[in-house]
Amino acid sequence: MNWAQLTELIKTKQSFLCVGLDSEIDKIPAHLRNTEDPVFEFNRSIIDATLPFTVAYKPNLAFYESRGIEGLNSLKKTMDYLENFRTECFTIADAKRGDIGNTSSQYARAFFSKAASGFDFDAVTVAPYMGEDSVSPFLAFEGKWVVLLALTSNKGAFNFQLNEDTSGTALFENVLKTSQSWGSKNNLMFVVGATRAEMLEKVREIAPEHFLLVPGVGAQGGSLSEVARYGLNKDCGLLVNASRSIIFASTGTDFASKAAEEAKKMQEEMSLILRNAGIVS
Amino acid sequence: MNWAQLTELIKTKQSFLCVGLDSEIDKIPAHLRNTEDPVFEFNRSIIDATLPFTVAYKPNLAFYESRGIEGLNSLKKTMDYLENFRTECFTIADAKRGDIGNTSSQYARAFFSKAASGFDFDAVTVAPYMGEDSVSPFLAFEGKWVVLLALTSNKGAFNFQLNEDTSGTALFENVLKTSQSWGSKNNLMFVVGATRAEMLEKVREIAPEHFLLVPGVGAQGGSLSEVARYGLNKDCGLLVNASRSIIFASTGTDFASKAAEEAKKMQEEMSLILRNAGIVS
Repeated sequence: MNWAQLTELIKTKQSFLCVGLDSEIDKIPAHLRNTEDPVFEFNRSIIDATLPFTVAYKPNLAFYESRGIEGLNSLKKTMDYLENFRTECFTIADAKRGDIGNTSSQYARAFFSKAASGFDFDAVTVAPYMGEDSVSPFLAFEGKWVVLLALTSNKGAFNFQLNEDTSGTALFENVLKTSQSWGSKNNLMFVVGATRAEMLEKVREIAPEHFLLVPGVGAQGGSLSEVARYGLNKDCGLLVNASRSIIFASTGTDFASKAAEEAKKMQEEMSLILRNAGIVS
Repeated sequence: MNWAQLTELIKTKQSFLCVGLDSEIDKIPAHLRNTEDPVFEFNRSIIDATLPFTVAYKPNLAFYESRGIEGLNSLKKTMDYLENFRTECFTIADAKRGDIGNTSSQYARAFFSKAASGFDFDAVTVAPYMGEDSVSPFLAFEGKWVVLLALTSNKGAFNFQLNEDTSGTALFENVLKTSQSWGSKNNLMFVVGATRAEMLEKVREIAPEHFLLVPGVGAQGGSLSEVARYGLNKDCGLLVNASRSIIFASTGTDFASKAAEEAKKMQEEMSLILRNAGIVS
């Protein structure tokens, strides 16, 4: 899915919601536990329930890898199921990869080449620590996206990301500036945590046109209106992720309808934001 | 495997060689391609041939993930095979993971919890960008290790890792300093690329006692004697990785014996280094 298609999808659904499929097996509703693949059954129900309100799905690989090959099978089935809705949602492998050039090429195949790996995500999250040649192999895949970590939503972001260099530029700002020569707004997004919404203003000064993937709304405490206030650009340019607050809204048999309710609430708030900004009418 | 056991193993084998199992399927010798699992057959032969000269094996996950679930099966079989040699080698998942706290906990299970994932590595490589809470969940696993990226061997290391903050401290030095409060020499190592051997002197000033995992010797051009000159400490404190120069020393039917030859050459050079330094007699 390219920039124009994603932007159009946002306008059509009046939503910039990304649902994080962080489907931790211990939190899956009890009544699904006896099915053949509880995590896939859970994901399928969550997708069916939330698709009208959602423009992107973002499984975090950790929650699948923690169950070894069985977990990867759940992920594979989930992504195969999402192929039925290719024009209705964008898909992000939240994997935070990055390695030396020839190795990152292998990771790119892992997420982008269906022929090689069976997976065909639209985008993958990448860590910037190893620099350009760790990122560019992903950008070499036509029509695919890198979502580069800039300012994350966790406490550990303070350890290094906010450190300023001799010219007063924080590391995350340096990442935003430097990486813009590696890709364009058409294949490069940035992760900026909602828990630092006021920093979005600074981010928008450096990267006015790029999509920002904003985690941390919901369970992590970030505010959607604050994120929109500082992060929205003229085409929207935001994907706001919520995971636990939607997928684990209920742990009972009504988990899917409760997830839909939570997603709908966010979509309605987003619709209002988009209308107030004149992005949709 | 703990610090004392690893150090003893180095002295016994008179080697600090780590073999990188970057077993790219397109480079596997042709005569193995018709076996049921060419990558596993290749790895098993490489392990059998190099074990006398090697103290550690380091599969890079990218080369397995690029083949999807089939690739993960090859890795699983390889690691199951290595369990036969638990006291004879240390194992490192070169995965360069790192995420917010509860997610990193899931990654830790993926690599350290046999019950959860089927994998039971001694160590995993972790990227430091997201800071303390992205690293500490790995360190919470008793007897397991984090190998934290500090200064990598690739060109992209210049983008951010060498940037100095207002106090003149480069990012990689800051990572070395800050992370020492997260773990000890008993569960925390650092990646320092051999392509910048002279920087090892600076690294040793900051982290005199920690093990350093040094990639970049061999195909990437780093020199073993330079690495030892600046990186060795009184107990050795080094694991030097070579991948392609050993495992792809030949692409013919003699690939295993040629790999053994290359590993033996490095072990002999390492033995001399250890004797000259008085670490073994």
